[in-house]
Amino acid sequence: MNEPLHSVPLERAYRLLNPGPTVLVSAAHGGMRNVMAAAWAMPLDFEPPKVAVVLDKATWTRELVEASGHFVLSVPTRAQIDLVQALGTTSGKTFQEQEGRDKFTAFGIEALEGRANAGPLVDGCVAWLECRLLREPANEQRYDLFLGEVLAAHADPRVFSEGRWHFDGHDELRTLHHVAGGHFLIIGDAQDARPLAPGELGGG
Amino acid sequence: MNEPLHSVPLERAYRLLNPGPTVLVSAAHGGMRNVMAAAWAMPLDFEPPKVAVVLDKATWTRELVEASGHFVLSVPTRAQIDLVQALGTTSGKTFQEQEGRDKFTAFGIEALEGRANAGPLVDGCVAWLECRLLREPANEQRYDLFLGEVLAAHADPRVFSEGRWHFDGHDELRTLHHVAGGHFLIIGDAQDARPLAPGELGGG
Repeated sequence: MNEPLHSVPLERAYRLLNPGPTVLVSAAHGGMRNVMAAAWAMPLDFEPPKVAVVLDKATWTRELVEASGHFVLSVPTRAQIDLVQALGTTSGKTFQEQEGRDKFTAFGIEALEGRANAGPLVDGCVAWLECRLLREPANEQRYDLFLGEVLAAHADPRVFSEGRWHFDGHDELRTLHHVAGGHFLIIGDAQDARPLAPGELGGG
Repeated sequence: MNEPLHSVPLERAYRLLNPGPTVLVSAAHGGMRNVMAAAWAMPLDFEPPKVAVVLDKATWTRELVEASGHFVLSVPTRAQIDLVQALGTTSGKTFQEQEGRDKFTAFGIEALEGRANAGPLVDGCVAWLECRLLREPANEQRYDLFLGEVLAAHADPRVFSEGRWHFDGHDELRTLHHVAGGHFLIIGDAQDARPLAPGELGGG
């Protein structure tokens, strides 16, 4: 269970998505809520921070995003790999219709409350971006592409603070990077580039 | 130097970008060429494969993409970390105007030829996507967001084959995932999710 969420300054929110993790997309509307996995998400601007995410037409999450005008991106961890895959391959609508319960209940996910009231945040994740949908119907229809403005951002200070990820000693909290079919790469260690002068590689 | 490029079937091209690596964007037009780094790129569709990438208005690469209607995404490696940061923080136009040479020459980059004639491929990378610009002027102007259809995809078979990344024994070829300011995370090892039944986490 997460400690109280730590706020990330909005101008640094892009750093939560910059390394390209697979995310969970959640939304709520009219007493209903859902959550799905998405590998196709990225930052779109620095400040105000914006994001882009692809939401297939078949998903219930997309319906809730369109109805509420909001969504949340939660960044899940290695400890959640089985859950992420399950959330990416099951239909919330089916659970709701056949079992009368949503995916949060079915999979025992605790929904955290954020600051911007954009939707449920997934407990156990390490970063969260609460977003307002920037309506672009042509993108949504033609490309399943949804854009959002980040209203609030949070992170788990054990692995993200002062604008940097630091996973050392927290291997179970490393982010997931989906390849295909439930096969993921786990993010590794940090490395800093050193300044390089033109010609140093022999092209001068 | 790369061995001859190995083709990746188009329906699997998304897997080259799915784990969210930082990419190099290159383009050529009228005898000029340029290359820049971009952390904001993602797959947009499976088949025909499409991609999305953010190109700032200040970049010369963007001008060349707009003029040629094509671009190439190359996926660089840990061995290229200093080069990637240099390409992300220098202006090709400045090199051209002040020194009469482009960034390929200035940094000693060998440009490989692809199959689709979409622009120069960066040698030493581990994956390449040759793209045709899908013109969406509203996205380009409002969000600096460029969409492309992948015409051809290639990978280094030492680390990508049969639809999977496999970096074991090739640490220098691991992909880069930029956080900010030349600080990167290096992709780690693979892990497969196991099937999870609803309720298994205690929510049943």
